[in-house]
Order: sequence, then C-alpha cells, then structure tokens
Amino acid sequence: MQVTLAVDVMGGDHGPVVTVPAVLRVLAEKPSLQCLLVGDEAAVYPLLSSLSPATKSRITVVHTSEFVTMDDKVAVALRNKKQSSMRLAVNAVHDGRADACVSAGNTGALMAISRFVLKTHPGIERPAIMTALPTQTGHVHMLDLGANVDSEPEHLLQFAQMGSLVAEALDGHAFPRVGLLNIGEEEIKGNDLIKQTHELLTRSSLNYIGYVEGDGVFRGEAEVVVCDGFVGNIALKSSEGVARMIAGMIKEQINRNWFTKLVGALAWPIWQGLRREMDPGRYNGASLVGLRGIVVKSHGSADVDSYANALRVAILEVEKDVPGVIADRLSVSAASSAESLS
Amino acid sequence: MQVTLAVDVMGGDHGPVVTVPAVLRVLAEKPSLQCLLVGDEAAVYPLLSSLSPATKSRITVVHTSEFVTMDDKVAVALRNKKQSSMRLAVNAVHDGRADACVSAGNTGALMAISRFVLKTHPGIERPAIMTALPTQTGHVHMLDLGANVDSEPEHLLQFAQMGSLVAEALDGHAFPRVGLLNIGEEEIKGNDLIKQTHELLTRSSLNYIGYVEGDGVFRGEAEVVVCDGFVGNIALKSSEGVARMIAGMIKEQINRNWFTKLVGALAWPIWQGLRREMDPGRYNGASLVGLRGIVVKSHGSADVDSYANALRVAILEVEKDVPGVIADRLSVSAASSAESLS
Repeated sequence: MQVTLAVDVMGGDHGPVVTVPAVLRVLAEKPSLQCLLVGDEAAVYPLLSSLSPATKSRITVVHTSEFVTMDDKVAVALRNKKQSSMRLAVNAVHDGRADACVSAGNTGALMAISRFVLKTHPGIERPAIMTALPTQTGHVHMLDLGANVDSEPEHLLQFAQMGSLVAEALDGHAFPRVGLLNIGEEEIKGNDLIKQTHELLTRSSLNYIGYVEGDGVFRGEAEVVVCDGFVGNIALKSSEGVARMIAGMIKEQINRNWFTKLVGALAWPIWQGLRREMDPGRYNGASLVGLRGIVVKSHGSADVDSYANALRVAILEVEKDVPGVIADRLSVSAASSAESLS
Repeated sequence: MQVTLAVDVMGGDHGPVVTVPAVLRVLAEKPSLQCLLVGDEAAVYPLLSSLSPATKSRITVVHTSEFVTMDDKVAVALRNKKQSSMRLAVNAVHDGRADACVSAGNTGALMAISRFVLKTHPGIERPAIMTALPTQTGHVHMLDLGANVDSEPEHLLQFAQMGSLVAEALDGHAFPRVGLLNIGEEEIKGNDLIKQTHELLTRSSLNYIGYVEGDGVFRGEAEVVVCDGFVGNIALKSSEGVARMIAGMIKEQINRNWFTKLVGALAWPIWQGLRREMDPGRYNGASLVGLRGIVVKSHGSADVDSYANALRVAILEVEKDVPGVIADRLSVSAASSAESLS
C-alpha cells in the first residue's frame, strides 16, 4: 500500500537533524513510502545530499521559513503563522497530498491547527490524545492524555468509543476491554465525572469492564483505558518520571564500586532486553484521534529511533484507515442507537 | 521521649501475623516505646508468648472481637462498629491513652472514624492523606492521595500549608519548596481548580515554586507537591504500577538463559541497593493530616518490614509534635492574615 507522510521536520527539540534521518530510516524500511519534508530547505537539503536518486525521488521538500516554537501561544500559532511547517504539514493531509502528518512540535498548537484544518468527525465534540503504553502483558491504549482538561461524561464516552475502534483496528483485537481510570477507595470511589461516565459506559455496547486503577493500567487489565486529559497526562508523566528515576538508580548502583561496575558490564544483555521492552521510543507517537485525518505527535525530545517510531505509528494508522473506521463505525452506532430509541 | 502507639493489629490483608511482629521489632529499636495492641486477644497472645517480662510490660493488649473489613461501607464501619479494633485505636488517641494510632485497614473507614473522633484543626475543612515518595534527589511529600475527590482551591491551599509544616517538622527543612501538580501543555495548562489554586498559592506566604509536572515530582523539583485526591491517587498508583512492571521485566530478563541467570545472581549487590532505594516498605506509612491527633495508614498488603516503617512514621510524628505544629502555625498564620485584612 502506497503511503505518503507529511513530516513537520522543524518540530521538536532537535529539528531536522533528528527528523530527517528518522524519515530516511523509515523510507528504507518501507519501499512504498513517500514523504513530504516540510521545513527550511537550507537545513534539510544538506541531510539529503548522499541519497541515491531512487530514494530522492520519494522525497519532496516543501520549503517554508516559518515555524511554530514550543513557547508560541496556541492563538499565535493558529492565526499568525499560516505558513508554519506545522500548518503546511496538516494542510497537506487536508488537501489529500499526504495520508497523515507527523510533528514533534508544540502539542497545544498541533491540536488547535489540526482541529481547525481537518475538523472532527460528526458526533465527536473533542479530539483526544491517545498513545500505547507498555504493560505487564503487552500494551494498553490510553486516552485522553492532555487535550481536554475539563471533560464531560459524554466526552469520555466518545473517547472510549474511539479508543475501542482504534485498538481493534491497530491490534486486530476484536472487542477490546475498555476500563475507566479511577481510584480504589470504597465509598469515596470516584468523583462525579467518573460516576456519570460509568453509567454511560455500562449502557454502551462497548466491552466495558468497569474501573481500572493506576496500577491496574500497567498490569494490563484492559486494552483501552479512558480518562480526562488532566488525569491522563499526570498519570503518563508520573509513570515516565518513575521509569527514569529507576533507570538512574540502576546506573548509580552499577557505579558503586569496581565489582558492581564489572557485573554491570557483564549484565549487558539484561539491560539491552530491558531497554527493548520499555524503550520510550518504542512507544513514541501519540495519535490525535477524532479528527478527519491522521495526525501523530512525537515527543519533543525524541531521538532518531523514537521519531522513526512515530512515523511508523502514522503509517500503520494509514494502512488500517483509522479515521475511516471511526467515521463508519461511529455513524453506524449513532444510527442504531437512534433506531433503538425510536 | 516516651511514646505510646495504639495499633489496630487486625487491619490489613494479614492481620496480627504481620502487625504484631512489626510492633516487636520497633519496640526493640526504641526502648522508650509502649504499645496498645488493639484486637482479638486469642490471635495476639500466642505471638507474645516468647517475650521477656521487660518487653511484655511495654505492651497492653486491648481486646475486642469486632473488626472493620476491607469491604465494609464507611457508614457501617462508623455507625455500627463502635467496638472495632480500628475505632478503639483511634479512641485511645482521643482519650490520651496513646500518642498516635496506626492501622492498615480500610482507608475510607479510617478517615471517617478519625475525623469523627478526633475532629480537624480549626480552619481545616478536610483532612488529607500525605506520604513521602522517593525522588532522584531524596524524597517528596505528596498530598492529597485520595481522601478528597472534589477539592476546592481553598482545600488545596490548606493542604499546601499543612504539607509545608509537616515537611519542615519531619525533615528539618526550613521553608520547603511547594509545587502544584499540573500538566505541562501551554495554554491548555490546567483546569479551573488548578488556575484558582495557583492564584491562592502565589499570594500565600509559602515557598511556592509554581507548577510541577508528573515527571517533575520524581525529579525532586519540590519538597511538597499538592493535588486533588483523585489525581494524587492516580499518580501514586500509576507510579507503583510502573515500578512493579519494571521489577517484573528485570526478573524476566534475568531468567532468559543460563548466562543472564548467572550474571543476575552475581549482580546481587546491585539488586540489593536498588531494593533499598526504592523499597515501597521504606515509604510505607501515610499520614492523615489536619486531624487533632496522629493517625498513620499502612498499606493493606504491608509485610513486617513495611508495617514497621508505618510505626516509625507515627513515632516520628509524635516526637515532632506534628498536630501541635499545624495547630500553632495555622492559627498564627490565620491571625496574621486577619490582621493584615483589618
């Protein structure tokens, strides 16, 4: 299947020196891939100089000298930077020149621009940020991770519906288990948002398994976990923080003395295996779901490995036609619930 | 300093077989400690049979055959179980027969009973659950961790004030840095609760450093991190879940083949050091702050090591007179703010 990605090569902490090599790696992996590299041609062309003519023919550089910075206000990025690399990459999806867009830039700006340019599916009021996270048994799709900080129960229901469809499309997992992130104290269980969402999910046609606690997410209790963006972002960042802290502690323990250093060196295959399993890069690439087009957000600090993964996420979503699945299935489910009401 | 603890020996997943040995360990560590063991004497006495008369003289068994279970509704525990081991342990603090109480039982019930029996300090509307967590640079005190799921800005301000005082009292750290847990997306930064709390904290006399993100908590950006109980509980449990997942992955990597098993065995000092640094037991013991008395909640699943730590937390709070410090300093700060208003 031929896939064309629009890549905002200027986004992220490192810009083209990371994004362009990642594109070249994924082009090598997937012969039917084409890429629009949107950004400053003076920074991009030198990175393409040693390519074969065959590879070069699969790359189109779309020049612009305007960029969204990490500090740009969303309103500024949206209204005053209409030629930014981010905006032009999203425009390419809207115009059909690309099947998906990838950016490591400012999340708020990317969400606002994508929503403005691509619009949401009918029936979806708000897009959500969704990503896969490792668990003890595989991985879990979690949403929302920060697009919405004051969600209503209806929004969480929509996130659950979209999350279930995406998990099904990407993993081929029929009827994925959907959990609602909650705290476990009896009685004081949950706030009003959670209680009302629980009612909606219980009545839905989803494979809803009820509440999942913070630790249950990583035990793999559900394939999809739904939460408000504020809570989801805190859970995500806390988890990343703990993983980083533990990695630091392991290093510290290895550096304690000559014996631990020696054993630490011998234990190389263990660290390699561990890195492979919990590599943040392996999970880099969050989807902005609910839009009429595919937009994937990479971590701003991504390295070449990680950014390549975000590109792979975008390719997979194109191949599985995620927006098409959401549009079709949500309209079917809306029609059938209208029918059951009549 | 003489300290008397009232211990709800029946609370938790394991009951007396964990709580009593933990008490004996801490009695051996601290010669001036006395303990009331509140629970079923038939279960407790056999565990005390081999003690010296000197140690026995420091223990008083308070018999009761009523217990709060993990499944008890809070209302049932509070109204219908007035002779429960949990209730009698809290009563002992109220009556001055003990300086602090420790329980590994049902958190909701412990909070409700403590609040009902001990009352909150004047000016404190709601108690909060607070615990220390490891960070890259030491530890952080985080609150609330689940007592309140729909906090108002004024509550978070009170949590911040209490947290700051407790951190100062326990760690001897003058003017601890206080952070407000938030998400990092620009513009969409925070919900209304966070924005309003930010205003209150900025105007307070605390050493408020502004927002801290989930990963910043574990980088050690603040000595005190404040949040609503729903968010705090999710962050805490997610962090525990990730730590457990990583521990499982390390074990899996060690068991991959004979070489990794051998190296894993040689690396014993590394694992020991790691365990010491991130041992959940080392951080077991959450304080119910804001009450006119000391109540410490242990993890329900605590083993002897962990439960002993919860007992040590209670002793330290007695020695530092945490409720006295909170009462004195909060009334001073209330008086001075009343003065500045007049």
